[in-house]
Amino acid sequence: MEKVLVLHGPNLNLLGEREPEIYGALTLEEIDRRIAEHAGRLGVTTRSVQSNVEGELVREIQDARTWADGILINAAGYSHTSVAVRDALAAVPVPAVAVHLSNPAAREHFRHVDVVAGACRGVVAGFGWRSYVLALEALTDADQ
Amino acid sequence: MEKVLVLHGPNLNLLGEREPEIYGALTLEEIDRRIAEHAGRLGVTTRSVQSNVEGELVREIQDARTWADGILINAAGYSHTSVAVRDALAAVPVPAVAVHLSNPAAREHFRHVDVVAGACRGVVAGFGWRSYVLALEALTDADQ
Amino acid sequence: MEKVLVLHGPNLNLLGEREPEIYGALTLEEIDRRIAEHAGRLGVTTRSVQSNVEGELVREIQDARTWADGILINAAGYSHTSVAVRDALAAVPVPAVAVHLSNPAAREHFRHVDVVAGACRGVVAGFGWRSYVLALEALTDADQ
Amino acid sequence: MEKVLVLHGPNLNLLGEREPEIYGALTLEEIDRRIAEHAGRLGVTTRSVQSNVEGELVREIQDARTWADGILINAAGYSHTSVAVRDALAAVPVPAVAVHLSNPAAREHFRHVDVVAGACRGVVAGFGWRSYVLALEALTDADQ
Amino acid sequence: MEKVLVLHGPNLNLLGEREPEIYGALTLEEIDRRIAEHAGRLGVTTRSVQSNVEGELVREIQDARTWADGILINAAGYSHTSVAVRDALAAVPVPAVAVHLSNPAAREHFRHVDVVAGACRGVVAGFGWRSYVLALEALTDADQ
Amino acid sequence: MEKVLVLHGPNLNLLGEREPEIYGALTLEEIDRRIAEHAGRLGVTTRSVQSNVEGELVREIQDARTWADGILINAAGYSHTSVAVRDALAAVPVPAVAVHLSNPAAREHFRHVDVVAGACRGVVAGFGWRSYVLALEALTDADQ
Amino acid sequence: MEKVLVLHGPNLNLLGEREPEIYGALTLEEIDRRIAEHAGRLGVTTRSVQSNVEGELVREIQDARTWADGILINAAGYSHTSVAVRDALAAVPVPAVAVHLSNPAAREHFRHVDVVAGACRGVVAGFGWRSYVLALEALTDADQ
Amino acid sequence: MEKVLVLHGPNLNLLGEREPEIYGALTLEEIDRRIAEHAGRLGVTTRSVQSNVEGELVREIQDARTWADGILINAAGYSHTSVAVRDALAAVPVPAVAVHLSNPAAREHFRHVDVVAGACRGVVAGFGWRSYVLALEALTDADQ
Amino acid sequence: MEKVLVLHGPNLNLLGEREPEIYGALTLEEIDRRIAEHAGRLGVTTRSVQSNVEGELVREIQDARTWADGILINAAGYSHTSVAVRDALAAVPVPAVAVHLSNPAAREHFRHVDVVAGACRGVVAGFGWRSYVLALEALTDADQ
Amino acid sequence: MEKVLVLHGPNLNLLGEREPEIYGALTLEEIDRRIAEHAGRLGVTTRSVQSNVEGELVREIQDARTWADGILINAAGYSHTSVAVRDALAAVPVPAVAVHLSNPAAREHFRHVDVVAGACRGVVAGFGWRSYVLALEALTDADQ
Amino acid sequence: MEKVLVLHGPNLNLLGEREPEIYGALTLEEIDRRIAEHAGRLGVTTRSVQSNVEGELVREIQDARTWADGILINAAGYSHTSVAVRDALAAVPVPAVAVHLSNPAAREHFRHVDVVAGACRGVVAGFGWRSYVLALEALTDADQ
Amino acid sequence: MEKVLVLHGPNLNLLGEREPEIYGALTLEEIDRRIAEHAGRLGVTTRSVQSNVEGELVREIQDARTWADGILINAAGYSHTSVAVRDALAAVPVPAVAVHLSNPAAREHFRHVDVVAGACRGVVAGFGWRSYVLALEALTDADQ
Repeated sequence: MEKVLVLHGPNLNLLGEREPEIYGALTLEEIDRRIAEHAGRLGVTTRSVQSNVEGELVREIQDARTWADGILINAAGYSHTSVAVRDALAAVPVPAVAVHLSNPAAREHFRHVDVVAGACRGVVAGFGWRSYVLALEALTDADQ
Repeated sequence: MEKVLVLHGPNLNLLGEREPEIYGALTLEEIDRRIAEHAGRLGVTTRSVQSNVEGELVREIQDARTWADGILINAAGYSHTSVAVRDALAAVPVPAVAVHLSNPAAREHFRHVDVVAGACRGVVAGFGWRSYVLALEALTDADQ
Repeated sequence: MEKVLVLHGPNLNLLGEREPEIYGALTLEEIDRRIAEHAGRLGVTTRSVQSNVEGELVREIQDARTWADGILINAAGYSHTSVAVRDALAAVPVPAVAVHLSNPAAREHFRHVDVVAGACRGVVAGFGWRSYVLALEALTDADQ
Repeated sequence: MEKVLVLHGPNLNLLGEREPEIYGALTLEEIDRRIAEHAGRLGVTTRSVQSNVEGELVREIQDARTWADGILINAAGYSHTSVAVRDALAAVPVPAVAVHLSNPAAREHFRHVDVVAGACRGVVAGFGWRSYVLALEALTDADQ
Repeated sequence: MEKVLVLHGPNLNLLGEREPEIYGALTLEEIDRRIAEHAGRLGVTTRSVQSNVEGELVREIQDARTWADGILINAAGYSHTSVAVRDALAAVPVPAVAVHLSNPAAREHFRHVDVVAGACRGVVAGFGWRSYVLALEALTDADQ
Repeated sequence: MEKVLVLHGPNLNLLGEREPEIYGALTLEEIDRRIAEHAGRLGVTTRSVQSNVEGELVREIQDARTWADGILINAAGYSHTSVAVRDALAAVPVPAVAVHLSNPAAREHFRHVDVVAGACRGVVAGFGWRSYVLALEALTDADQ
Repeated sequence: MEKVLVLHGPNLNLLGEREPEIYGALTLEEIDRRIAEHAGRLGVTTRSVQSNVEGELVREIQDARTWADGILINAAGYSHTSVAVRDALAAVPVPAVAVHLSNPAAREHFRHVDVVAGACRGVVAGFGWRSYVLALEALTDADQ
Repeated sequence: MEKVLVLHGPNLNLLGEREPEIYGALTLEEIDRRIAEHAGRLGVTTRSVQSNVEGELVREIQDARTWADGILINAAGYSHTSVAVRDALAAVPVPAVAVHLSNPAAREHFRHVDVVAGACRGVVAGFGWRSYVLALEALTDADQ
Repeated sequence: MEKVLVLHGPNLNLLGEREPEIYGALTLEEIDRRIAEHAGRLGVTTRSVQSNVEGELVREIQDARTWADGILINAAGYSHTSVAVRDALAAVPVPAVAVHLSNPAAREHFRHVDVVAGACRGVVAGFGWRSYVLALEALTDADQ
Repeated sequence: MEKVLVLHGPNLNLLGEREPEIYGALTLEEIDRRIAEHAGRLGVTTRSVQSNVEGELVREIQDARTWADGILINAAGYSHTSVAVRDALAAVPVPAVAVHLSNPAAREHFRHVDVVAGACRGVVAGFGWRSYVLALEALTDADQ
Repeated sequence: MEKVLVLHGPNLNLLGEREPEIYGALTLEEIDRRIAEHAGRLGVTTRSVQSNVEGELVREIQDARTWADGILINAAGYSHTSVAVRDALAAVPVPAVAVHLSNPAAREHFRHVDVVAGACRGVVAGFGWRSYVLALEALTDADQ
Repeated sequence: MEKVLVLHGPNLNLLGEREPEIYGALTLEEIDRRIAEHAGRLGVTTRSVQSNVEGELVREIQDARTWADGILINAAGYSHTSVAVRDALAAVPVPAVAVHLSNPAAREHFRHVDVVAGACRGVVAGFGWRSYVLALEALTDADQ
């Protein structure tokens, strides 16, 4: 595994501003920098993309089939309803891991079921920016 | 964080025998050994307990408040219904992470909601025995 | 009525430690002492048992048919799901009263239906340790 | 606590006539007399009101804020649906206890959820007229 | 449009006392005065009625057909269940607007569906006493 | 059977004005006159009461136990939710028949279940004012 | 109205044998004879058909369009599920009345919704064999 | 309050063409002109944006945090399902009001719950283009 | 017990052809022969009937009251919805046992509830043709 | 593909009479003639059967396995509930296409799920009699 | 098949005492003796275990994989909720049959779905102690 | 009918790559070529557009009102949730047909209800690329 797409869903571009008691105080840029650093130590290159548009997440997942060996996806508000994102992940033979900054199981009821995670290999949730790093480790581990 | 309780729920003692296409081929002993090794590298001591009895999981969680700095819990079949385990985790001021070998979101419908995870800091699911190791990293990371 | 089983369900052994804003600051021992004192004034002997194990609650209820004239049961987290505890109460011809320290109707939605109380004579909920004492009065009142 | 409103909801004026196998053979007057007697021993004055009209229950609860230190409310058939009664109890800073003669958890399914009790301090149910007396004790106990 | 019925449902007579963080600190009288003032500027006379009784709300709506050109109705706790109030509004050929001081969509789940509003021309919710004034403007606007 | 209470629920006082395509063009007075005439032919005296207030319907049902031999009840908008009216009918040993002018099974979904009818002997629905007359025949028939 | 189809659904041929405490002690033949007598007094001819087969009920309803002026239908066990019978009634421009011997609203929960009645003009239920006679009156009344 | 974002959701660009019996005959341009005029009188500048893309609504809401003092949002078809739009509104410290041309409570069942409104200060619905103007008044009123 | 009706529901005539991995490779004739043989050893005569028509199953059950001492019924696809078959079994005082070749609890969700079995003495499911034989033993056992 | 069964469900024999605004003005005979003509052009022979009886539809599907190469089935009112018809289609190795004259997705809610179609290769709905012809093309196309 | 585990769930140790009208008058010992006798005739040895503890049932099932050729399990009150018991049965390659003394389909609604039976080969229910014997026959039959 | 918009929803651009056992082996380009060819034979010009963005599907449908005589829409993953696409189709007076390559009724439960199809004239599903061609025929047929 050499190249990984890091896909951030709606409103994650506001990180650092938005409800820091839930999501932490880092900006998305800073999180992407930390992911990249960590990826470097694992011998992996990452490309980070954020979009608020459901269909652009679909397109990025589709494009990933031509260049990426893995996907980290934090689908945020689309996690709980998007059949289109789920179908994209199912259609593309690139392994994916679902990531959440907070722990949806401890939040509102409508965040308890995760449609997108159903098409992923696994889930890491609740550890702030480190959720991405742990998911990256999970994804890149040769042993799995 | 120096001492961590690793709590395995019902049927996990069968690991290595039971449905290896879902849970992997390692025995629970072997998994515990790997967790311990990894914990050693992180400067952490683990104590692993498996029980098929819901109330014993409750008791272990309660006891953990006297000696442990963190809990990894794979509540297995009790994850989806046990208010008692959830209450125990909520009552004890020791941070916990929910762990699953497989990815419940990709399995039967009655595994899609996780009552126990609602009282944990986060979740790591879907990476076989490595779910425990990643959860341990999440738990012990000073930065969190 | 001379002898009463006082049955405490999962996590109640933590009383005094656990979420005192909900459950009060007394320990279970202290509560049992107060129940016993009060029982003494009513000419009743109590035996208090706490268990985190659903099946042990079942067994205590069953055993009560050989020695007890009444049961006070705080099934805690099992109140809302345990058919086994309910069946035990229905099978044993000893009158029981369901007890809760807090008021489940004012808490999370999944605490609003009480399966166990359906096999009891009545319910006392929301008055902390005094719920037990009031339930004992209800149970022992000759007039009922 | 010196003055307590005892509020009886719809059809309770029929007590003594109506389904005595469920509600007992006492009339409401007789019950009120017993409550008053018991209250006297506790140094409390009670005022009992019965109404079949949801809105009159609301008004009595509201008026109670000007003169009462506590409320016992048996909302009967309105217990399971009345947002208005619940809102009244929530709006008035007088502690209330929900009372039932029978045990709703052991009756029809539509009596298993108690909307009104959600705005009360606690519940006493299933002990006939003594439910009121026990609730009064709960309400007046200085220790609570 | 010259005459408007302003109908306040259960517990609104407590305004100024009741949960001011939700409903604001004005009394109902003061609110009625402000509505009347504003109505005066629009050339409209208002008559304000408050009732805690569902059936009295029905009767006021019915009576309105003989004298009023419009209705502002804040059905409060009856908004979410009253078929009778809805039927009254549907039966009377006087246009009505549903009003709420707070925003039900941001409160408890059982306030998210508004049965009464389904028989109104529109809804204004969330702006405290000004909800009434805005609703009055909506109702009286010749242009609509 | 000599005396029958005819009980009309909320909004039925508007008959003749309200949605004649659903309820017919007769006023309630005219309907009561026709019921009385028909009752006369059956040797029965009727007393008709209309109320928009749920609790007054409860009271009328209760009072009927002292003078009436039967009840015709058109609970209108309360038919689908009122546990209090149902409890009143169950508490009073006077046979009742549920009446509807229109056919609820052919109207909105929330009119498909009839809580009040569950405590009646039978139902006549859909025949306008003649529903009452047919129900009266059913009630008075010695043969039943 | 001169000719009426009386359609009896599944198991009604057992009347007189089957659960007389629910359905009465008359046989279907006797009931049909009484209906015919009563019809004679109203100047109406009836043809009675019983079938246990859903599709035969459909066919009889269809055939009725060529000869009948009205239909009385007791769809019995098919009342609560049959879209086919409902569609037949909707397709045929012959007015129908739904009939039940017992009162479904007072029986099991799965008899509380009546799919077939939704395509009828009205319902008469709960009066044993007289339900048919009353329904016939309703159907034949010129005044309706 | 000086600057307000007016955000129109999917299909609102068709106004004037689309189902005028529901939405009125004005075009979106004309509505925006009227809003702007009215805003001028209130000393407020508005910027109107229409988008059919859920993610663009998210982005506009996000951008509003840098320049706007308030938001009027008619999320149209996304009102009932979009967690992403709701999250955006919750993340941005700019007060918002939900607007609807028609009254969703009087339309199809799937329009009765408003996910987006749950993150707004209030709602104005049912008054055609004037819903925007009234919402603007609500938003800009200093007194609120 | 001397004579038993063996009633096979829809599609069972295809046995041996239809999905043998679920239902086994025997034809219905062969199964009936085996049941008859086994019945002979138990001193019982069986008559086997297969029908795809719900109403014919009803009729066979009804007829059984005139000649049979017991019924084995495999209602197949009607098991999960037929109130008519259930009513027939409840109406006829002949004991019945529900039979299934496969184990419905291990198949699709809509086969998990068995309406017909609710009117039977018991159930035998999952043992192919031997389910009938075991059910016959259960039915004929004098000891029961 | 040479021989095709065209199976019409309940009430379709009324075509041309029944609700022409929904189903069109052609009779079933005329539709069958058009299907046959079109089939002739495709080199296919059709046999059309209509039945109102669920079990006869089952039998026709079963018989089709001995002579037909394909099935067109319009199960009408049975489409939404019949497990028996679905099981028959699943049991018979003849490809089937579900047909509807109208578009169920645009009609009542209880027509939105199609149990029978789940055992078909595909669906054609909403084009009146041409739905059959298009379905026949789909079925016979060698290319599929 | 030589050795069979007979596993009795919660409250079954009370047999003979508990609700004999439902469960029969035999004690569990007597039932076990009868099972053993019958097993002897089939050339099978049985080992019977009763436990009220869900986790002990899990452990017994697990242990069975080392010595048993088959399992009879009456999970009683755990039948309807225990994912842990189901998982144990699924994990162990020993065939199991679910047993019930009474017929759950004819009892309370919450006994209509059997989670544990979903991991068994089949079910025998409703024949008292003979359910075990029949299940044993089913399990041991070489022909299956 | 001369010009038709062919609208492909999310992930359909992957056709030929994605799960060919479900969707077939043709690319979207090839499918569009075949549609165009077929359209040519029918004297129709098609314009094909694919988008992964819900709002772009909305815009294309809106634009179609200025140039197209018909729409074929395969909304894919948005079919089951998009009120916005449905509203667009309802707002534009161009007839549309819903198309699916596979048969949703035979797939996961969440694909069984089709929100978008409710605003279309009809549906063609399950025939791979030929679904489009058949839908085109349906759309263009003058006879309809």
